[in-house]
Amino acid sequence: MAEAVRHDKTARQLRMLSDALDSGRLGPVRRLVNTLAPAEIGNLLESLPPGKREVVWGLVDQEDDGEVLVHVGEEVRESLLADMDPDEIIAAVEDLDIDDLADLVEDLPDTVIDEVLKSMDRENRERLEQVLSYPEDTAGRLMNPDVVTVRADVNIDVVLRYLRLRGELPDHTDYLYVVSRRHQYLGRVSLASLVTHEDSTPINRLVDDEQPAIDVGESADEVARQFSDHDWVSAPVVDDNNILIGRITIDDVVDIIRAQAEHQALGAAGLDEDEDLFSPVWRAMRRRLVWLFVNLCTAFVAANVVGQFEGTIDKLVALAVLMPMVAGLGGNAGTQVLALMVRGLALGQVGASNVKALLWKELRVALLNGLLMGAVLGLIVLVWFHNPGLSLVIFIALTCNLLLAASAGVLIPMTLKRLGFDPALASGIFLTAITDSMGFFTFLGLATLVLLR
Amino acid sequence: MAEAVRHDKTARQLRMLSDALDSGRLGPVRRLVNTLAPAEIGNLLESLPPGKREVVWGLVDQEDDGEVLVHVGEEVRESLLADMDPDEIIAAVEDLDIDDLADLVEDLPDTVIDEVLKSMDRENRERLEQVLSYPEDTAGRLMNPDVVTVRADVNIDVVLRYLRLRGELPDHTDYLYVVSRRHQYLGRVSLASLVTHEDSTPINRLVDDEQPAIDVGESADEVARQFSDHDWVSAPVVDDNNILIGRITIDDVVDIIRAQAEHQALGAAGLDEDEDLFSPVWRAMRRRLVWLFVNLCTAFVAANVVGQFEGTIDKLVALAVLMPMVAGLGGNAGTQVLALMVRGLALGQVGASNVKALLWKELRVALLNGLLMGAVLGLIVLVWFHNPGLSLVIFIALTCNLLLAASAGVLIPMTLKRLGFDPALASGIFLTAITDSMGFFTFLGLATLVLLR
Repeated sequence: MAEAVRHDKTARQLRMLSDALDSGRLGPVRRLVNTLAPAEIGNLLESLPPGKREVVWGLVDQEDDGEVLVHVGEEVRESLLADMDPDEIIAAVEDLDIDDLADLVEDLPDTVIDEVLKSMDRENRERLEQVLSYPEDTAGRLMNPDVVTVRADVNIDVVLRYLRLRGELPDHTDYLYVVSRRHQYLGRVSLASLVTHEDSTPINRLVDDEQPAIDVGESADEVARQFSDHDWVSAPVVDDNNILIGRITIDDVVDIIRAQAEHQALGAAGLDEDEDLFSPVWRAMRRRLVWLFVNLCTAFVAANVVGQFEGTIDKLVALAVLMPMVAGLGGNAGTQVLALMVRGLALGQVGASNVKALLWKELRVALLNGLLMGAVLGLIVLVWFHNPGLSLVIFIALTCNLLLAASAGVLIPMTLKRLGFDPALASGIFLTAITDSMGFFTFLGLATLVLLR
Repeated sequence: MAEAVRHDKTARQLRMLSDALDSGRLGPVRRLVNTLAPAEIGNLLESLPPGKREVVWGLVDQEDDGEVLVHVGEEVRESLLADMDPDEIIAAVEDLDIDDLADLVEDLPDTVIDEVLKSMDRENRERLEQVLSYPEDTAGRLMNPDVVTVRADVNIDVVLRYLRLRGELPDHTDYLYVVSRRHQYLGRVSLASLVTHEDSTPINRLVDDEQPAIDVGESADEVARQFSDHDWVSAPVVDDNNILIGRITIDDVVDIIRAQAEHQALGAAGLDEDEDLFSPVWRAMRRRLVWLFVNLCTAFVAANVVGQFEGTIDKLVALAVLMPMVAGLGGNAGTQVLALMVRGLALGQVGASNVKALLWKELRVALLNGLLMGAVLGLIVLVWFHNPGLSLVIFIALTCNLLLAASAGVLIPMTLKRLGFDPALASGIFLTAITDSMGFFTFLGLATLVLLR
């Protein structure tokens, strides 16, 4: 019952906001919205149906507009941008950090992009262009070129003087980076060590050169894995010549981890993690339709298998009653194996070296479950239809289908991954195509052999 | 094709390790393993089949044992603990941070817990007992009581003197907390502000009192949401009297976010996020069996529906061929709605205030998809069976089942949540129970009315 009594701040805010909106007085709504952090405003906007969403978006403080745009999914972002004129967009995005701006820029109209670039000073424009020159989903695209560097051959007091002169540090600065004269990355010095050592301590005594820098071409997934394996808050990014070119911070990594999670959960249902809860009906319909058509095709294959056995069913209608059970249980058992495999592949825990051991384990689990469930189902059938032959047929067919489901659950995602496809997306369709068709085939085929001799 | 060419460090390590293990020379394995961070070692151990797992676990440096235990799932942890004698366990865990120890302690044998408590000094023992006194999945259980506090009425130089005397800061210290004489939380001062301001600056000029402290009873999910909404690295935890009692750090929050994600992805298949990839066959079988039995029951209900129409099927066997398509497409369409709803509920984006708007949107999507898919399926059936009546029946039945699937996809998780159950876990079973049974019922029922008059 824990779920129900949990604090649920967002849902509470949503209710208050919705009540205020319904009452039509926008003053309280504006006050309520602008006590929230940009990410919270983004979350609220995502939860509002069209109409209400535009009203609330119009009430958000202009200075928060840019940060809110950064914190919503792509579809919702498009719907918000559609409500803004070019000047508003430019005002909203020009104060964003380079990494956030890079994330946003592709969703902006081309004319606006030009204006934004023109409004930036030369240094920032070059930085943005550098970040945009790297492929999406790589470290280069996630980094912020704004880093604080120091030399190793000075003492703490020199660094502190420099920092006081500088006046402010980028968000999430837990380490300063030590570089050579040619700006090569040498190591890092924590702020914690600066404040816990005497002023006269030389920096080179405090340098941690154990943490490897992130390669600019590394994938976003790999970056996220390293951050969570090493508990980093920030990490330096270097190019092929070990020149320090930027810094990735934990806030962006948390966003990646959330996106990965949603990708796996929604991907299994053929949806995109950027799907808007309230996307326009036509758009939602078109997207879902693709998935349903694929399912129609696989269902058609399964129906064709059944069609081959029309004669058998005609002689024993009980087969039509029971065949969905064999297929359905196979699908369910296979989905369990699949969920484990997709997670294992995402974490890099499954590969050529252990897939055989895994398949062997899953086959044994499936055999035991198949024999047990098959026996139970066989007994039910015996009581229901008083037909021992039918009982035997469903017992064997279910066991076979569970074994097949386990093999498919292990091998389909492995194969998709090897072929370069995303196993989180397409595995489920293939799996149920196999468990349905083969479930019908073994059950009806065996019935034809055993019962209609 | 991006997936295939991505760097995949863990999988590469796994392969190297596996080759080294197969060659039987343990020296290289030991060297390889001990270059890794504890979380990486944990990840590798999770990916190894029994046998190999024990061998590698025996090669891990003793000083890393505790951290590795913290970083593996509960099931794998049990399998690792089973290989250790009490003295080894005590040596492994006694240097852990209080929050990590609290996380681990429930999996330890009772006798070992007593020994561990005895080996701790009084202050740490009291701290551990305090943390353990809070319910699991609350802020109190996540916090570390080790915090650095300062007074507001001093200057930076006094704080720096104190910190240099102290010598070390807890991991992820980005802010010091300002407290009153009675240890009430007043605000926070960033290390960044300490190093960017002159020594003579009074602390009260630097205090940020905007960030609210986390209430000790707040749920872990809510803590995670606040961290990612506000981009925090650490946050103070207070009791009901606003007394500062601990601090939560981003590393634990990242673990929560990962666990939430796995909970949603694996929960949909009736699995636990702590499931070991290589859990013993008997254990895996028992756990899956529960899920399969529930599925057997719902499949049985659906089979019973079909059983009511044996006479109809007997007269027109084509119905048996087509009925799985109606049921299956309904299940797939409903699963899509469900995935969106479960995510929305997890993010607090769906509630009483917008569920009606959401249902209305999903019903319109379902109606359009139903009419379109129904027309396609109707045409196929016309070509296949040359029976216009059958064509009409499947057109209406599919449209009805998609409408039903959309309603079930919205309402089932809402209802489960309201009743205090976890919508990520049980929604799928109920959904397919409804789409199967009602899919068969509308299709076969309509067929009886229309075709057998």
